[in-house]
Amino acid sequence: MPRTRSELSTLTGLARSTVTGRIDALLASGLIAPSGETASTGGRPPATFAFHPGARVTLGADLGATHARLAVTDLAGTVMAQRNADLDIALGPEAVLDWTIEHGSKLLDEVGRSPTELLGIGVGLPGPVEHSAGRAVNPPIMPGWDGFDVPGYIKRRIDVPVLVDNDVNIMALGEHFAAWTDSEHLLFIKAATGIGCGIIAGGQVYRGAQGAAGDMGHIKVSGAEETHCRCGNTGCLEAVASGAAIAAKLTEQGIAAGGSRDVVELARSGSVPALRLIRQAGRDIGEVLAGAVNFFNPSIIVIGGSLALAGDHLIAGVREVIYQRSLPLATRHLRIVAARTGEASGAIGAGVMVIEHALAPGRIDAMLR
Amino acid sequence: MPRTRSELSTLTGLARSTVTGRIDALLASGLIAPSGETASTGGRPPATFAFHPGARVTLGADLGATHARLAVTDLAGTVMAQRNADLDIALGPEAVLDWTIEHGSKLLDEVGRSPTELLGIGVGLPGPVEHSAGRAVNPPIMPGWDGFDVPGYIKRRIDVPVLVDNDVNIMALGEHFAAWTDSEHLLFIKAATGIGCGIIAGGQVYRGAQGAAGDMGHIKVSGAEETHCRCGNTGCLEAVASGAAIAAKLTEQGIAAGGSRDVVELARSGSVPALRLIRQAGRDIGEVLAGAVNFFNPSIIVIGGSLALAGDHLIAGVREVIYQRSLPLATRHLRIVAARTGEASGAIGAGVMVIEHALAPGRIDAMLR
Repeated sequence: MPRTRSELSTLTGLARSTVTGRIDALLASGLIAPSGETASTGGRPPATFAFHPGARVTLGADLGATHARLAVTDLAGTVMAQRNADLDIALGPEAVLDWTIEHGSKLLDEVGRSPTELLGIGVGLPGPVEHSAGRAVNPPIMPGWDGFDVPGYIKRRIDVPVLVDNDVNIMALGEHFAAWTDSEHLLFIKAATGIGCGIIAGGQVYRGAQGAAGDMGHIKVSGAEETHCRCGNTGCLEAVASGAAIAAKLTEQGIAAGGSRDVVELARSGSVPALRLIRQAGRDIGEVLAGAVNFFNPSIIVIGGSLALAGDHLIAGVREVIYQRSLPLATRHLRIVAARTGEASGAIGAGVMVIEHALAPGRIDAMLR
Repeated sequence: MPRTRSELSTLTGLARSTVTGRIDALLASGLIAPSGETASTGGRPPATFAFHPGARVTLGADLGATHARLAVTDLAGTVMAQRNADLDIALGPEAVLDWTIEHGSKLLDEVGRSPTELLGIGVGLPGPVEHSAGRAVNPPIMPGWDGFDVPGYIKRRIDVPVLVDNDVNIMALGEHFAAWTDSEHLLFIKAATGIGCGIIAGGQVYRGAQGAAGDMGHIKVSGAEETHCRCGNTGCLEAVASGAAIAAKLTEQGIAAGGSRDVVELARSGSVPALRLIRQAGRDIGEVLAGAVNFFNPSIIVIGGSLALAGDHLIAGVREVIYQRSLPLATRHLRIVAARTGEASGAIGAGVMVIEHALAPGRIDAMLR
């Protein structure tokens, strides 16, 4: 809704000079635009300003273990163009980021926008990330990425703000933004080759003290004491319920499965062993989530990742155990749903991360300095 | 540090009229006081204002299952007087709140303050609380309290703001305020007759969607599938590791123990069975917390409640399992410490809850209406 400077001053309690300064900064950045004049009580009519979603764009890059997804969005988070490709994160940061820059620029071309119109670039990585520094920290499956300065590398080619987070956090942000903004407390589960959780608390990504929050793959599940995990412990959720673990179990049973996607294909073609293992994976994930529900009391749990694409078997197992094991007060209004944005959630969320960062009041004031 | 109106306007970016309005409201409430005049460039020197901790007081009431603790604090959270008594919460809301009002008024008398000087009253209850409404919700051990209007009842006798939360949340707030304000992400564990957790996230109490966050007593622990819990499930943490559960195990072994306090007495007198059971309770609590550490990534875990008073046995068990089971990134800088404020944490936290509520900017503006 268009507002005058004077209305904005009254609405926010901010000094007229502060409002004028922020409006100038937002006009310069293109985030708002003049939207005409209002009737005045006399003299020159005061100008009004409104949010202008088309004025700038974002580039979101969701870089997974073996796949990359790019999206160009407007400032309302609407996808204008996207691209998916097989890309191995283990090729190292330079090769992967060069690809991202090259194909991101092509996407911008396709929608008739230039890199100078970018509000910023958001990048999701499949491992622990120090968000404030834009670096991966001891990522297990990303040789060459540890401590690599992602924003610095990208900015040498496209000089706009670059924000980095782990893939599950941006997927949670994308789902929350696209489908569940009414839910302040959301858990997003990515069940794929690995298992991770993104947390939205009070409407914002919750990262914890070292940015490690939501790392549920190495929580212990019952009855799995004999199963060794690559982390060095036994009984970890990821060692029994991940796409990689299910593929290994199928292979042991003489059914060829190279990874998470093969498991999904088998389930879709009706393989009973695959369906049973996915259902049991849902129960194991549900056991860990039952604790998280008691602890965190979310209003919604969103199940995504490639394993969730194999129909309702995974989510049915999750629901079965959560409703059995969590406290009635915590489950009374709890919804457990499948992700709505599908494979695009990460790329959308990376764009949303850029928009939310740019619109923070401290950031707007900083533009004036 | 004393500030002038003009300095406060510059510091906050708020309009001079907003600053003046808030200062008037804070002066009227007694939260700030004039602190003299500064040198000026000419004309009447501008007045400065500073926070005035002694101007008003709070009454904090930590009402446990069988004990009540009251404290009068100043606006810096410093305890001016306190009182502890055996009081059964099952006597019902009227009897317990009458006692609270009577002895709270006596405490105020002792420090020479009147109820009109109260900024507010904070109350902690030993069960689930709907914080916004000030009511207990289906509390298992509090007959007569379900849905009872605690603020309404108290205000009929002392007409000041009354805030209510569960006892573990106010204990977390008291510990955080008194000893760990440098830690933004804190878990406070109360290990006593029952087991609960208060969560500080981003410096504030985290309550979750229904105010049920931190309810860790009914999370499943391994190797306890045969143990039935009063909640109707099996294998709950509280059924194996609470003070009540330990007392029952000691009694089975022919060692008389009526509850949590007897267990602590036995441990202090060197009873090996009591010490072993407390250590194992620490391990069981540690198993549940290991999951919470991966999930929430706190910077500090504070162990309190009566079982923590039996020396280092409980905390040693907690540390043993957390460092074994949680991810290195999440435990690298994690501290696991004993509570500093002892039995006063809840009453202090109840006062802090009142202070933080009164100092929220929205609240100050509301005083002007």
